[in-house]
Amino acid sequence: MAAKSEMRQNKATKEWVIFAPFRGKRPHDFKPQKKQREDLPAFDKGCPFCPGNEHMLTNIVFEMAGEANKAWRTRIVPNKFPAVTPEGDGNRFQTGLYVAMPGNGRHEVLIESPQHNHQVALMSPDQAETVIETYHRRYSDLMHDDENMMILIFRNHGPRAGTSLIHPHSQLISTSIVPRYIRQREEEAERYFDEWGRCVFCDILQFETENDRRIVFENSSFVAFVPFAADVPFEIWIVPKRHQADFGQISEEEKSDLAHALLNILFRLYHKLNDPDYNYIVNTSPRYRADEPQLHWYIQIRPRLTTQAGFEIGSGISINPSLPEADADFLNNATG
Amino acid sequence: MAAKSEMRQNKATKEWVIFAPFRGKRPHDFKPQKKQREDLPAFDKGCPFCPGNEHMLTNIVFEMAGEANKAWRTRIVPNKFPAVTPEGDGNRFQTGLYVAMPGNGRHEVLIESPQHNHQVALMSPDQAETVIETYHRRYSDLMHDDENMMILIFRNHGPRAGTSLIHPHSQLISTSIVPRYIRQREEEAERYFDEWGRCVFCDILQFETENDRRIVFENSSFVAFVPFAADVPFEIWIVPKRHQADFGQISEEEKSDLAHALLNILFRLYHKLNDPDYNYIVNTSPRYRADEPQLHWYIQIRPRLTTQAGFEIGSGISINPSLPEADADFLNNATG
Repeated sequence: MAAKSEMRQNKATKEWVIFAPFRGKRPHDFKPQKKQREDLPAFDKGCPFCPGNEHMLTNIVFEMAGEANKAWRTRIVPNKFPAVTPEGDGNRFQTGLYVAMPGNGRHEVLIESPQHNHQVALMSPDQAETVIETYHRRYSDLMHDDENMMILIFRNHGPRAGTSLIHPHSQLISTSIVPRYIRQREEEAERYFDEWGRCVFCDILQFETENDRRIVFENSSFVAFVPFAADVPFEIWIVPKRHQADFGQISEEEKSDLAHALLNILFRLYHKLNDPDYNYIVNTSPRYRADEPQLHWYIQIRPRLTTQAGFEIGSGISINPSLPEADADFLNNATG
Repeated sequence: MAAKSEMRQNKATKEWVIFAPFRGKRPHDFKPQKKQREDLPAFDKGCPFCPGNEHMLTNIVFEMAGEANKAWRTRIVPNKFPAVTPEGDGNRFQTGLYVAMPGNGRHEVLIESPQHNHQVALMSPDQAETVIETYHRRYSDLMHDDENMMILIFRNHGPRAGTSLIHPHSQLISTSIVPRYIRQREEEAERYFDEWGRCVFCDILQFETENDRRIVFENSSFVAFVPFAADVPFEIWIVPKRHQADFGQISEEEKSDLAHALLNILFRLYHKLNDPDYNYIVNTSPRYRADEPQLHWYIQIRPRLTTQAGFEIGSGISINPSLPEADADFLNNATG
């Protein structure tokens, strides 16, 4: 099978799907028992993300150096089994009844620590800031390339969240298309703006702050809360207080505040929910929308404590067994 | 926690979510090792779906009798841990910034056999026809009630698909809302119809039949194929050849043909993919849309062989590691 993926548009929904058949053989080195993480070595000679194993990497895209240049603190490398590749372009072609295009884009791994068994929820604030700084630099770099219509930074933590490697890392995928799902969020935001003259996320933020029933964290730049209509138990949004559509617009102070917010929440999830598997995603505006008054970027954390079954798949409606207010209380309760 | 759920609309996406906190404590009697299914007893004294255990049920909604009334063949009972309940109505209310409504609807279990360890993929054609007949009767009954805007019949098979009970069963959920996700499918179908004057599903069917690259089954009433832009490996659609928006419109002959199509495909998945976990869903038109020329019902089978991770959640784009054409070849190959 050729190492090239293809994107296809679902004729019925206009949604895009990436076909990357070669991803079938990914390395699966995670342990099903998460508690064994403590027994893992700080260095693994078979792990391409560990220092000294650079020969196992095709390339190092970016690196944040440690103090006195002693060692790197974070690193970005190409994904060895990419869903999309920089070859090709965004040109659609007709194939029979359907529209398709090359699987064009970038798929990179953001290594969050040199230490193989590092637990992200327990990292130092300093290291968390370095991770956010790494996100932001690479995001800004790639946004200089017109071909990147969307850049998604996300983290998969644990087997239920789709992790295939132990070594702590996030991922970044850029594509030359904007998915229907994100366009729909845009359209709803636009409708809201046209009706009320305000950003819907700003209004949500203001209401949540006043209402104070679902807030789990606040500092000078960010508010974190369990959304009113959370899809899954303990879903959490970290939203910048200042209106900004684009993650690229984050200030130095906000970066530091974001690192603290993220760390605080991951730390509590780790302790209160016994290190749950989770995904988090930096939801930000696609290209050309960075200055629009109705879009607002945020980080969405989704623990993987439940299973999406037939009803969810068929209806798009999630069945959430936990009330957001109860989730917030649980996370806020010192003895929870 | 009160045994009443609530639906909430996500302000940003207009999607609805059902909150049913009491579902947290569902019975989980499935075995993680599916192969142990053969070692399970044909009768389980602790299983509410086994004959003789009717005292464990709150009610029997419907029953298909066996020959000479010897025993029931299929049965419908209320879900003991329902996501929605018949109490309440479809009236929305404002709660702060948000819109909410009661978790109004029906959530029922369709028991597909009296035999506890029955494997649906191996059932007789006769029993499969009885299952489809059961689906159809209950669907038609509930469609008489104006409150049911959408009726979704689905099957969760295996732990990765969200099964909580071994005894073979499907489920039915009716709601007094139409989800955004389904409206979106409708809107796309309408746009296509307005542009081309044809049903998009009829066109897909015609193209797939002529192209013959992804077909896995065909009889006089149905064509089954791996869709061009399948979300997951071995996703299969079973589509009626005759244009019909509504599952309720299925004829007697089509019911029989559907049973044979479904059984044929489940049998092959069972043997070729080692009894994979899967969901299937009867995707049919919501109320008031049954006669529209652009909608077309179909059964969607989605094996659970991959994990949706951060990218899929954030973008709505699935990463499918397998090409539909290869999936079809694999299922069609006698030695596969």
